Amino acid sequence: MTVNLYSDTQTLPTAAMRRAIAEAPVGDEQRGEDPSVNALCERVAALLGQEAALFLPSGTMCNEIALAVHCRPGDEVLADVTSHLIHFEAGAPAALAGVLIGTLPGKRGIFQAADVDAAARPNTRHAPRQRLVSIENTANLGGGTVWPLATVAAVAQAARGRGLSVHMDGARLMNAVVASGTPAADYGRLCDSLWIDLTKGLGCPVGAVLAGGRDFIEEAWRLKHRWGGAMRQAGILAAAGLHALDHHIDRLADDHAHARILAQGLVGLPGVAVDLDAVETNMVYLDVTGTGLGAPEIVQRLKAHAIVVGALSPTNIRAVTHLDVDRAGIDRAIDAFAAVLGR
Amino acid sequence: MTVNLYSDTQTLPTAAMRRAIAEAPVGDEQRGEDPSVNALCERVAALLGQEAALFLPSGTMCNEIALAVHCRPGDEVLADVTSHLIHFEAGAPAALAGVLIGTLPGKRGIFQAADVDAAARPNTRHAPRQRLVSIENTANLGGGTVWPLATVAAVAQAARGRGLSVHMDGARLMNAVVASGTPAADYGRLCDSLWIDLTKGLGCPVGAVLAGGRDFIEEAWRLKHRWGGAMRQAGILAAAGLHALDHHIDRLADDHAHARILAQGLVGLPGVAVDLDAVETNMVYLDVTGTGLGAPEIVQRLKAHAIVVGALSPTNIRAVTHLDVDRAGIDRAIDAFAAVLGR
Amino acid sequence: MTVNLYSDTQTLPTAAMRRAIAEAPVGDEQRGEDPSVNALCERVAALLGQEAALFLPSGTMCNEIALAVHCRPGDEVLADVTSHLIHFEAGAPAALAGVLIGTLPGKRGIFQAADVDAAARPNTRHAPRQRLVSIENTANLGGGTVWPLATVAAVAQAARGRGLSVHMDGARLMNAVVASGTPAADYGRLCDSLWIDLTKGLGCPVGAVLAGGRDFIEEAWRLKHRWGGAMRQAGILAAAGLHALDHHIDRLADDHAHARILAQGLVGLPGVAVDLDAVETNMVYLDVTGTGLGAPEIVQRLKAHAIVVGALSPTNIRAVTHLDVDRAGIDRAIDAFAAVLGR
Amino acid sequence: MTVNLYSDTQTLPTAAMRRAIAEAPVGDEQRGEDPSVNALCERVAALLGQEAALFLPSGTMCNEIALAVHCRPGDEVLADVTSHLIHFEAGAPAALAGVLIGTLPGKRGIFQAADVDAAARPNTRHAPRQRLVSIENTANLGGGTVWPLATVAAVAQAARGRGLSVHMDGARLMNAVVASGTPAADYGRLCDSLWIDLTKGLGCPVGAVLAGGRDFIEEAWRLKHRWGGAMRQAGILAAAGLHALDHHIDRLADDHAHARILAQGLVGLPGVAVDLDAVETNMVYLDVTGTGLGAPEIVQRLKAHAIVVGALSPTNIRAVTHLDVDRAGIDRAIDAFAAVLGR
Repeated sequence: MTVNLYSDTQTLPTAAMRRAIAEAPVGDEQRGEDPSVNALCERVAALLGQEAALFLPSGTMCNEIALAVHCRPGDEVLADVTSHLIHFEAGAPAALAGVLIGTLPGKRGIFQAADVDAAARPNTRHAPRQRLVSIENTANLGGGTVWPLATVAAVAQAARGRGLSVHMDGARLMNAVVASGTPAADYGRLCDSLWIDLTKGLGCPVGAVLAGGRDFIEEAWRLKHRWGGAMRQAGILAAAGLHALDHHIDRLADDHAHARILAQGLVGLPGVAVDLDAVETNMVYLDVTGTGLGAPEIVQRLKAHAIVVGALSPTNIRAVTHLDVDRAGIDRAIDAFAAVLGR
Repeated sequence: MTVNLYSDTQTLPTAAMRRAIAEAPVGDEQRGEDPSVNALCERVAALLGQEAALFLPSGTMCNEIALAVHCRPGDEVLADVTSHLIHFEAGAPAALAGVLIGTLPGKRGIFQAADVDAAARPNTRHAPRQRLVSIENTANLGGGTVWPLATVAAVAQAARGRGLSVHMDGARLMNAVVASGTPAADYGRLCDSLWIDLTKGLGCPVGAVLAGGRDFIEEAWRLKHRWGGAMRQAGILAAAGLHALDHHIDRLADDHAHARILAQGLVGLPGVAVDLDAVETNMVYLDVTGTGLGAPEIVQRLKAHAIVVGALSPTNIRAVTHLDVDRAGIDRAIDAFAAVLGR
Repeated sequence: MTVNLYSDTQTLPTAAMRRAIAEAPVGDEQRGEDPSVNALCERVAALLGQEAALFLPSGTMCNEIALAVHCRPGDEVLADVTSHLIHFEAGAPAALAGVLIGTLPGKRGIFQAADVDAAARPNTRHAPRQRLVSIENTANLGGGTVWPLATVAAVAQAARGRGLSVHMDGARLMNAVVASGTPAADYGRLCDSLWIDLTKGLGCPVGAVLAGGRDFIEEAWRLKHRWGGAMRQAGILAAAGLHALDHHIDRLADDHAHARILAQGLVGLPGVAVDLDAVETNMVYLDVTGTGLGAPEIVQRLKAHAIVVGALSPTNIRAVTHLDVDRAGIDRAIDAFAAVLGR
Repeated sequence: MTVNLYSDTQTLPTAAMRRAIAEAPVGDEQRGEDPSVNALCERVAALLGQEAALFLPSGTMCNEIALAVHCRPGDEVLADVTSHLIHFEAGAPAALAGVLIGTLPGKRGIFQAADVDAAARPNTRHAPRQRLVSIENTANLGGGTVWPLATVAAVAQAARGRGLSVHMDGARLMNAVVASGTPAADYGRLCDSLWIDLTKGLGCPVGAVLAGGRDFIEEAWRLKHRWGGAMRQAGILAAAGLHALDHHIDRLADDHAHARILAQGLVGLPGVAVDLDAVETNMVYLDVTGTGLGAPEIVQRLKAHAIVVGALSPTNIRAVTHLDVDRAGIDRAIDAFAAVLGR
């Protein structure tokens, strides 16, 4: 059996989740009549310490609708230089919300209040108007790193002091919560909007939930319609989300343990560089420059061992743990790397 | 039991469809690895006589992505004055694709080649550039009317003669196909892009499929990512679509028969006006001005009889038949109308 | 000498205006240091009964910046079906402000409060949000017709009753003012924003002035920068505007008298239809269908007589009077039409 | 008399230029009938080695129209992190063209082909599509630095190798030309579009000219209308431009000499840091951190000596030479700085 470490987005629904899906009570979500969607939104709003929430087909739509609600065209959003907004959303911030991204030079994807201050613009007529700071927690390209609550608090204070709102891209927020022991609502209360993805560590097939204040969510509803994110009997999807909130959060600790074991197993391989300090959750980034082999070549060779990982660049590989990978799979992955790269 | 004639968007998945959903083979649709999504797209492309197809979370997203692929900001799209694009997509054509809608004065939602010609603009530097004609088949606010193939052909010829592309909003295209006996691909071959909705007469919970040429669909893929329509194990939804294509098309004829029976049962009620000629598919529009009661008032009174219909304006009511409404339900609806409005 | 009735946009600066331009006190308008621009803006704000004003390179930019300040993407602006916004601004409302135009069926370009009421939308999540009513005074394609103050007042009341703001495209507002005797500020006080063009009847080479409340103008300043309308020593242009306000307003009455003489001189020509009631200011529209000649053909033949008019369609011609056309020119134009069309 | 070193945008038209303006032959530029505008566009096209050119009210509009013609919404434009596009155009790239800016880490505003290569993105469906590289020559925030022709050539080659077009923001291109001896057309032939500003070193009150291929300029014409940059008797402005091309180019060498004298005069002042190597044209940037005084405070004190410079940040001052500042003014400025900062 293949060990798929390509991404936690590739989890397959469990048998129990499939049963929850099959038996989901449903209705017309556009009219607020889908009981599963309603239950999911209420639950996520509470989880994140917000007044209300909205079910959407993807995390990208959560990010982009949030930007469009917070900002007006021509505004500037501050975000880490590695953020998903910039690299993986096909230019949506500019194309849909009309905003520029001002990049902050974080460390492992995590910037500081001082970075927000340093990026301050005078309020002139010809400078872009700054409106929002966006935080990605965990920071994917940062290594799956966890934002300390105190850092979020300091950034939020710096932002608010200059009239900026705070948004959190929580694609993997529950990993941060489990890894740090910080309650999600503690993060949430520092933010004007934030969301969690159901399809990554939580293991659902489709969907994400955006939370915020009541007015924010009401305006987000309008954009959900405008962007074609309004569905019908979406309880089919929301039921998986409810199931995941019950059964798939605590177990993220296993993914984190697996990632650490994997990282430690790879760090000694010749030519492989791993920043062990960055392995805080379910990701392991490898710099394979020293192996003399290109990352795509290594990925290809691992496939022959039934191990799937991703090449993020000619020299970098990412492995991600999730609920479809158990301890035995991690061991097999380490063995395969060793076989491919020599010992 | 309530008879729900509010809209065919409110159908509930059947037990068989739920089984198909629960057992769906799935994978990562963003990487082209979801077998159910792939099968659905291939099947719809063939059904519509197009090279390729793309699964999206809603019909609105099909429309709006099509506009954005065909057009550049500042272009003008010609569409009937009643079209969904204008009234029910929260301003998306302007907000997302940057296009103006030039309205054509169709009859029951169906315009003619001459209307396209009459709307022609000189190619000056200060006029909006015309780029696309959009056809809604069936025409919802037109009464669920069917575009004759010859009318589509003439409109398409007029459009192409002036360099315009042709798009079809096929939210209820299969109703048109079943009512007219025109193969879907015959419509499709006249269009540069078109789509079908899985959530209306076809009875699925979520999703729509946009079809077009290979280059068109490749560009639409990029917009699917940009707008947050890229999902993950979307086979959960696509499996319902495949089931519907197998089992829910021919039966649309029942919905059409039911609508006709309903219309004929209501046409004699005092103060109720029904345009019987417009009842071509699964919709019945009533003008209740003559009853002396407001439409919302009538809707309210019908609810007491467990009949649900929608008030589209202070004087108009719409009833829509679908797979959750059988012949007995239609009879009960007629009786309830008679009780509410007197005989 | 050619009599140029093509458009009042083609006036040439007079010798006195050229002197005013050459001697203009100037400074950096972006920093509020151009005395001529400042004087012009103060004067136009007062003229239009508004708090503040902004100098811009064109009337189109006045319209489009006003839309973008009043609205957010996805909103709907209500305007007459003949309005300049729709036909002559290259799709800017959608491309730049992201708004749809909802068309109102005015008579000669002038709609009524009832039309605004009839276009009302329910405040649902899927309908475009209505935000603004735009009035064009005089209405160019309506024939240069003047909005009665009472009609503007009624429309403004209907708009405000539904939470909509009111904008006036005053490209030829001073013609309306002179023709009706209504002070410009009386119109202005009914509007949230409005502007006058310096380049039409007022005879300047470049520029228009947008007026509104202080906050509106402050935000418009930002858009002036964004759109590249911020200039430098623009006093060169503003000085012409100040000269025109002193010397070129009252004389618009001559243009109106000339248009009337021209219309009366043409109305009896065989095959020519003129709606004399529509000739309220400086425009004469002719329907030449009855002549058996196409409008472009007639335009061509008139050129041989040194008379320039414009063909707006295959059957319609427009002649516009302005400060470069005197009474003798009007007589020559009538003679030329008679020669071309027979008597 | 005040010595104004705030910016070369604040030059006042000379008496000779005012005469050229007053006597300008003019016509309707929108119809291609303004002889001065036509002459200017032909001349600039030739100067820049391009097929055609377009007169616009500002350099910002040149930049932003170029972006919108080259790109589609969602595309990415690569530009130096200091570029005018990002900091001084009020968010226009995102708001109007819908593009993100990918920032390149140039030195003194000048990046290398290797930076373009390093910013390359894989052509995936979820990455922004890269479409354009923008070069600012001279680089304003870089210190007024000159792009060596070889660097432009290498960047252009790297760009084209990856399918990207090349745009040059030539707000101060003629300074680069005079300082380097490189003909403007040599730069121009490496670019798909570029422009010069008439209002900076060239000393005109209003306007800029965008040049490019014939198709590019034709599409730019449409956007000129859309954005409200289409004017009328703009020959009033273009005549100043023609005068400047005749009389104000060679003399830029004086401005450069003055800047160097100024820089050398300031470099020895206590606490003042000047990067003399960056003083290639008409700008002098001072870091005044070491003085213990804030930049705004110094600016204020210089005003009392009738010397005007600008504070770009709490610690940085910029002085710009231009045709209104002669050698005596430079000496007075040096004396005033010395008086303010002690010796």
